[in-house]
Amino acid sequence: MHELPQGFLAAGGTCGIKASGKKDLALFVSERPCTASGMFTQNLVAGAPVKVSRERLPSSEIRGVIINSGNANACTGQQGLEDARWMTALAAEQFDCRPEQFLVCSTGVIGHLLPRAVLEPGIPIVASTAEHSPQAFHDAAEAMMTTDTASKQSSRSVRIGNQTIIISAAAKGAAMIAPNMATMLAVVLTDAELNVDQASSWLRSAVDQSFNCISIDGHMSTSDTVLLLANGAAGVRPAGADEHRFREALNEVCLELAQSIIRDAEGAGHFVTINVSGLNSNQDAARIARHVADSALVKTAIAGNDPNWGRIVSAAGYAGVQFAETEVCLLLNGFLVYEQGLPTRFDAAAVSQALQSGEVEIDLRFASGSGSARFWTSD
Amino acid sequence: MHELPQGFLAAGGTCGIKASGKKDLALFVSERPCTASGMFTQNLVAGAPVKVSRERLPSSEIRGVIINSGNANACTGQQGLEDARWMTALAAEQFDCRPEQFLVCSTGVIGHLLPRAVLEPGIPIVASTAEHSPQAFHDAAEAMMTTDTASKQSSRSVRIGNQTIIISAAAKGAAMIAPNMATMLAVVLTDAELNVDQASSWLRSAVDQSFNCISIDGHMSTSDTVLLLANGAAGVRPAGADEHRFREALNEVCLELAQSIIRDAEGAGHFVTINVSGLNSNQDAARIARHVADSALVKTAIAGNDPNWGRIVSAAGYAGVQFAETEVCLLLNGFLVYEQGLPTRFDAAAVSQALQSGEVEIDLRFASGSGSARFWTSD
Repeated sequence: MHELPQGFLAAGGTCGIKASGKKDLALFVSERPCTASGMFTQNLVAGAPVKVSRERLPSSEIRGVIINSGNANACTGQQGLEDARWMTALAAEQFDCRPEQFLVCSTGVIGHLLPRAVLEPGIPIVASTAEHSPQAFHDAAEAMMTTDTASKQSSRSVRIGNQTIIISAAAKGAAMIAPNMATMLAVVLTDAELNVDQASSWLRSAVDQSFNCISIDGHMSTSDTVLLLANGAAGVRPAGADEHRFREALNEVCLELAQSIIRDAEGAGHFVTINVSGLNSNQDAARIARHVADSALVKTAIAGNDPNWGRIVSAAGYAGVQFAETEVCLLLNGFLVYEQGLPTRFDAAAVSQALQSGEVEIDLRFASGSGSARFWTSD
Repeated sequence: MHELPQGFLAAGGTCGIKASGKKDLALFVSERPCTASGMFTQNLVAGAPVKVSRERLPSSEIRGVIINSGNANACTGQQGLEDARWMTALAAEQFDCRPEQFLVCSTGVIGHLLPRAVLEPGIPIVASTAEHSPQAFHDAAEAMMTTDTASKQSSRSVRIGNQTIIISAAAKGAAMIAPNMATMLAVVLTDAELNVDQASSWLRSAVDQSFNCISIDGHMSTSDTVLLLANGAAGVRPAGADEHRFREALNEVCLELAQSIIRDAEGAGHFVTINVSGLNSNQDAARIARHVADSALVKTAIAGNDPNWGRIVSAAGYAGVQFAETEVCLLLNGFLVYEQGLPTRFDAAAVSQALQSGEVEIDLRFASGSGSARFWTSD
């Protein structure tokens, strides 16, 4: 169980969107206005909730987030936009604030209108259960799930002066070969006091090193969203050395959730970490890491515990980053398998055995510069 | 059986590179010097034969191509380069020309040195069987195969003045989940007379509309190569209206081979054509077509005969091409399933039935301009 930061309530319950009767409505609410920022899918075909939330951020007036699972409210046209705004209005009504002070996320099937008939009675009922408790936070995390097999939460506390601030987050993941679109949602809450610029740039940096470094199917969903709400209830503002520690904790929370999404990927037998180093820039390194992570042939090899260095090296070769073939080294779970453009005489059976552990570490080392990146994927 | 153009010999036989004892050495030889051009993999990690052939092209002195299967001679360092040059020298010796007049391709496992001990006696033996016959051409096409289930040939004849010129080509394909790298090789031969500029620009244009429009696993191999040899033996130069007809025949030969590669893709149950139209440029259309073709989620849906418009539309949405969501129309095998940003009320069972035929036509229509593209893939 994870604590909520001070001044936050949560709730998770069942409206009846999902035929299974499982929880399908989550609320995260702050007793006072929050500084908030968000990062959203780059897909041009974005769900209605993405459009509505995006236009309200960044902000220093946000009071909460309403999330439904079971229906993505994407590819739903003008009616979808009206439904998303209507959801925020109904949520705001329960907590005595304006509709514009609520953000909204939806995840599930696309191309179907939201069932207002079940949400209209459901939202007030679930809202009435909102409370400041680990259980309520857990319920909310569960209510975000679609094909996830377990709810995903993470939290950190950071001592600032004589105060302890908390960063707590909940996420839902994406699953390969899921029946629906593979959407990733995460909500990060903190009782630290941040201004809008801090919330925006610190969230971007944390997401770039976590959620933007995971790849399951390479298919960007219409609804991916990460939100940060900071309500300042702890009464302290991270500055100086505290800023560094706060941001480190924020990064850790995002990274832990991103990794748990990979570990929960449907049908995956291996958790794969890809380290790329020695490029001219971090961007170049990330490009190569992403191409390796997205390669279907690399995934197939890993699924079969096959130490197929050729697929990894050649995926690096078409990433669009310049390097000399003779400067590449590749290690698989610590075994040097490729060096200076040539495979080594490695013990294939021993490497395959190491891959069978389910934890795979791909280390691609170049000699161009000091740029590096780390990615995570599944097979 | 396909005819060879005038003045060309071919041979295909067994050296012993493949443990199976199947044919593994192909030769295409012209009795006179050819104008030749080539297009090669963009992968930075290129096989030694790619490097050697690339540095010899374009040329007006080429006499032939030697190809082995069973070993890609890629990731083989300096020794690999020496081996590739040695192969051309041995081939050139059999046909009384200089090593630089031969091109070389290799396909198969990567990271292993070529077995000179079997090639040294094998090359002269196979070369001694070279002849101008459909059977020899067929044998050569077979000797290029790796995981292909059938050899791939195509030819066209074009009447120019009172002469008939022939364009004949052989290719080997790529297979998803192949044990080795998925390499595509094609050799196009013609007895028309071309200059170097024509050979280069016409081949590029034909490849851009054929081999560059197919996608199986999105993984670019270290050895992909397309070669064009024109020996002028028919004594005519395509010009004016004849140029148009010649290029059309060249495009057709390349397209037929590219499509046969898709149809032969290992484990594929569907042949998928992706038409994208109405973008600002052909490049934009091709970008979207490639993203749809490469999407693992789209392939999975097609494999299951699932008319999953959401995966197709959202793959278009992350291609990096600007368009308005409300202008997109999608047809699956002629059924309108998505229009102006919304799914239609289509008959899912009827569309699924249509997909079960194994022939899938995805039509994505935009309203930005007149740019279009056509891609082919398998599930």
